[in-house]
Amino acid sequence: MNRHLRINGRPCAVVNADDRGLTYGDGLFETVWMTSGKAPLWPRHMARLGEGCRRLGMPAPDPDRLWRDVLAACNGLASATVRITWTRGSGPRGYAPPASARPTCIVSAAPATPWPADWYHHGICMHLCRTRLAVQPALAGLKHLNRLEQVLARREWDDPQVGEGLMLDTQDRVISATAANVFALRGDTLCTPAVDRCGVAGTARAELLARRPDAEEVRWSLDALLAADAVFVTSAVRGIVPVRELDGRTWPPSARVRRLQDAWQSAGLPGGVVA
Amino acid sequence: MNRHLRINGRPCAVVNADDRGLTYGDGLFETVWMTSGKAPLWPRHMARLGEGCRRLGMPAPDPDRLWRDVLAACNGLASATVRITWTRGSGPRGYAPPASARPTCIVSAAPATPWPADWYHHGICMHLCRTRLAVQPALAGLKHLNRLEQVLARREWDDPQVGEGLMLDTQDRVISATAANVFALRGDTLCTPAVDRCGVAGTARAELLARRPDAEEVRWSLDALLAADAVFVTSAVRGIVPVRELDGRTWPPSARVRRLQDAWQSAGLPGGVVA
Repeated sequence: MNRHLRINGRPCAVVNADDRGLTYGDGLFETVWMTSGKAPLWPRHMARLGEGCRRLGMPAPDPDRLWRDVLAACNGLASATVRITWTRGSGPRGYAPPASARPTCIVSAAPATPWPADWYHHGICMHLCRTRLAVQPALAGLKHLNRLEQVLARREWDDPQVGEGLMLDTQDRVISATAANVFALRGDTLCTPAVDRCGVAGTARAELLARRPDAEEVRWSLDALLAADAVFVTSAVRGIVPVRELDGRTWPPSARVRRLQDAWQSAGLPGGVVA
Repeated sequence: MNRHLRINGRPCAVVNADDRGLTYGDGLFETVWMTSGKAPLWPRHMARLGEGCRRLGMPAPDPDRLWRDVLAACNGLASATVRITWTRGSGPRGYAPPASARPTCIVSAAPATPWPADWYHHGICMHLCRTRLAVQPALAGLKHLNRLEQVLARREWDDPQVGEGLMLDTQDRVISATAANVFALRGDTLCTPAVDRCGVAGTARAELLARRPDAEEVRWSLDALLAADAVFVTSAVRGIVPVRELDGRTWPPSARVRRLQDAWQSAGLPGGVVA
């Protein structure tokens, strides 16, 4: 039995085949970075999960109970990435959700697998994905279990030197990476694509926007992104990682991005930059 | 142990928590109508499932082996609806699919639960859904496991007198019901919305289009649908069912739709019309 995998508060490795998370992707997830028993973005993860439950009309978890479960799953791991999956639980056939759902809670911890330190210094190469994100305001921002678009996009490259893929929506707007948000600097102005039509409202993105209230949420074409002075991605697990190359455009290391990374790590948030 | 539930060819009720069908909705399903050990639309189900595997880049099932599994799951049921779920199987974390996936196959049979006979005669009341379908050509037509749009749409009503909900896409085109396709008659012309931008290419829809090569695939507004002489829904499980009321418009029983129902049942396909 994997002691880092818990279902509904107990060590367990399987779920019922009629779980609506499996039959319809009817649920949500969070990927939490843990170090020394702390998760610096925990309140943001719980806020997004609660908002997702509200919008999908399902019961929300009790954050204190969930936190105890996360700690139990991390037992013995100094630093971990924890996936919390919260589904509407088992249900009868058909799309209609049961009137009183009993959600399934899966908590799975694994040792953190850091990106190469060089990527934090010099940036990642980014693939430009052909797969587009559909515009769906009803689901935009949520980290739900309907992730085929990301799976198709991630299938587009297997070069281990490529760190991420950039995704546009079906209306040619830049939205995000496959598993991270995107930011850009235009002069001193910090910009990130709006995620109210598609994309995920990342917790690292929310943290950075809270730290930089002057930042702008934009609807950019690819050309607008390529014209930026610096580009970087953010994720709860990876932290702040510059982009070195995208679609033939290259960016040198940016002192401004480096300062953002330094502030991020000073706040106890993840990153691979050794000063 | 539920003998009507089989996983990977054996009686089983649970799947691994790291199954990509659960973690990302990375898989497909089929809902098959079985009667007396026969599934009249089986080749169409297998064609769609195979096409889905090709487009998602995952191994396809062996239809003969799957058929034996379906028969085993139906054992003792005179008439059944069978759900086949085919996922990319367990995988490591992250959206990148494993290079050699070992799919999970879930086959679940349940006694058919017919709709009221009156609905086949006089038609269903149909709810006009506020939830829209996103335009996503990369996934259009497939019966994949990313079904949150249908779940949200189906949550919009709980009146048991309402048989289905009509869904438009985000560009105001009529696409389908939540769990059925939509057809309309305009004079003698049979029309059905195209499903190349969103929606599911139903097996009953494909069967009817094959029987009526004069039918047209259309991109209709709601007004165009409401102006039709008759409207009906099709599904592999329900067959052909007229629509009586939608958005304030009512349709009387149509002799043309009744003839389509009669031909459908004469061919051994499902339906609730007692002649």
